[in-house]
Amino acid sequence: MFGAMIHGEHDVRFEERPDPVIEEPTDAVVRTVATCVCGSDLWRYRGIAPVDSPTPIGHEYVGVVEEIGSQVTGVRPGDLVVGGFTTSDNTCPVCRKGMQSACLHAADYDGCQAQYIRVMNASGTLVTIPDTPDTALMPSLLALSDVMCTGWHAAVSAGVEPGCTAVVVGDGAVGLCAVLAAQQLGAEKVIAMSRHADRQAIARQFGATHIIPERGDEGVARVRDLTDGIGADAVLECVGTADSVDQALRSVRPGGQVGWVGVPHVEGLPLGRMFRRNIGLRGGIAPVRAYLDDLLARVMDGRIDPGRVFTLTLPLSQVAEGYAAMDERRTVKTMLIP
Amino acid sequence: MFGAMIHGEHDVRFEERPDPVIEEPTDAVVRTVATCVCGSDLWRYRGIAPVDSPTPIGHEYVGVVEEIGSQVTGVRPGDLVVGGFTTSDNTCPVCRKGMQSACLHAADYDGCQAQYIRVMNASGTLVTIPDTPDTALMPSLLALSDVMCTGWHAAVSAGVEPGCTAVVVGDGAVGLCAVLAAQQLGAEKVIAMSRHADRQAIARQFGATHIIPERGDEGVARVRDLTDGIGADAVLECVGTADSVDQALRSVRPGGQVGWVGVPHVEGLPLGRMFRRNIGLRGGIAPVRAYLDDLLARVMDGRIDPGRVFTLTLPLSQVAEGYAAMDERRTVKTMLIP
Repeated sequence: MFGAMIHGEHDVRFEERPDPVIEEPTDAVVRTVATCVCGSDLWRYRGIAPVDSPTPIGHEYVGVVEEIGSQVTGVRPGDLVVGGFTTSDNTCPVCRKGMQSACLHAADYDGCQAQYIRVMNASGTLVTIPDTPDTALMPSLLALSDVMCTGWHAAVSAGVEPGCTAVVVGDGAVGLCAVLAAQQLGAEKVIAMSRHADRQAIARQFGATHIIPERGDEGVARVRDLTDGIGADAVLECVGTADSVDQALRSVRPGGQVGWVGVPHVEGLPLGRMFRRNIGLRGGIAPVRAYLDDLLARVMDGRIDPGRVFTLTLPLSQVAEGYAAMDERRTVKTMLIP
Repeated sequence: MFGAMIHGEHDVRFEERPDPVIEEPTDAVVRTVATCVCGSDLWRYRGIAPVDSPTPIGHEYVGVVEEIGSQVTGVRPGDLVVGGFTTSDNTCPVCRKGMQSACLHAADYDGCQAQYIRVMNASGTLVTIPDTPDTALMPSLLALSDVMCTGWHAAVSAGVEPGCTAVVVGDGAVGLCAVLAAQQLGAEKVIAMSRHADRQAIARQFGATHIIPERGDEGVARVRDLTDGIGADAVLECVGTADSVDQALRSVRPGGQVGWVGVPHVEGLPLGRMFRRNIGLRGGIAPVRAYLDDLLARVMDGRIDPGRVFTLTLPLSQVAEGYAAMDERRTVKTMLIP
């Protein structure tokens, strides 16, 4: 089969790779119907995270089950399925608590930007998509593999509840999905911090009631203008840089909560200030499996359409261009079709 | 009147001080019926926090209203009252969100280990104790001024809920009250980390189901033995040292939450690990006013008896000995009667 390999900075290639096979009785092999490029893939593409040797890449997919191991239950060959960006057995004590991203038997994929994927922990990872969905739903189904569930996790972690005010820091695919999540969870004001007109437009489609293009002190002041002068109940941090984490912590009210899902690249946090103001911090790597059934139902009945974040679709063979377009911000997120 | 003044390390004196008077129309003057020494007062007593000049000290009390300003409502002269360790107007936007400890008009006391106290923001701070309580209830009423509400805040911040497993780090008065709070909020297992037999006994009276005397790696291993190998759902951090915060963060399960109320004296936190394991951190200075009505009702009808933490009672004139006894761990907490 063919799949994407990252060789180094700005060097992703579509190459022949070994066909995945069932190695454990809990594995499945899935033929990819759609896959995509993640913002987190760009860390290596941009040379910020090292690439020691050519490596398969990608962790999001919708596909059809080709083959299952002898212990796999719940999915059968021929099923159209979606799975989260980490695998989980969904039965260990951590999974039973709903934190499948820290499954005691978690295992990563060997590159999902490929024609076929080996899915470990298949029973606990894959969810069958009911009926035969309209092709137009494919982008939204694919978004469930990571960004929609990650945005949802930001909202849940920040404690978004009906009637609250939520600020979303970050207008990438995850941030935009976080706007949608905050709207779905009943936030009365959903404030998207975004400087890009194309992303502002998607944020508004997803339910943003206010857009704040300013950052830093000015951004904080604008949030306070909208929140009785005290800051937001819930802030959804969807970037992970020092500046964005700082923006989030300064935009939340005393007693409020920051839900962070952007992998943190920060030196430290203002702990004394957080303690004095009772600012909570929750979140981390999203437990996709915990949210998948609910969010799949919302996609199927049209309540959410997170697929709007895919503003470019390419054949998988053009994966290199898919990366370049995201790197150069010509697209929010690139969908790839094998 | 007479009250306590801290002059420096190990130097607290009972001295004549000016009688407090109504300075603002929102003030009340309260005649102290009972007051006490706080673990946080020991930072200055032990010379860890500086004392630049002789300073009135103390922030916990039950008393009788002597006089009120022209704008004070809700309490009247003659009322027996309790107030939290910070004052709050209970009407500002932050108070309305339930975080009265960050009231926009918060003001500190000028020393509550005294015969009389000026209470600013009296309407929003003082709560009248109904009827005339049995003298035996006085310690528990006094505990509402800080430690019981602070322990409760640890439990709320850690997300204690019915059926969960809670670990309490710290066996001071706040830690013991946190045990009581976790029990009241329905935790199925309440694990108290304590090395002192006298405090272990109070913890058991307060509802601890397990006592762990070990600390560090051994303490973590003992917690895991009791929690399916993964750590506790909720950890209540009631100390604030680097070691105790570390103990708390390592005792919580993936997706669990640490509620911290011990003023943090830490350099930093293991943010990458917290993110990977989805460990939440909430808490800070307790909003006493938010909890006071509920906890007062629980004291009055005998559901809780947090006054057990006062293992020594002295006349206020012997305040110096009250500090020494706490400093030398001869008592958990000292009650002082004017």
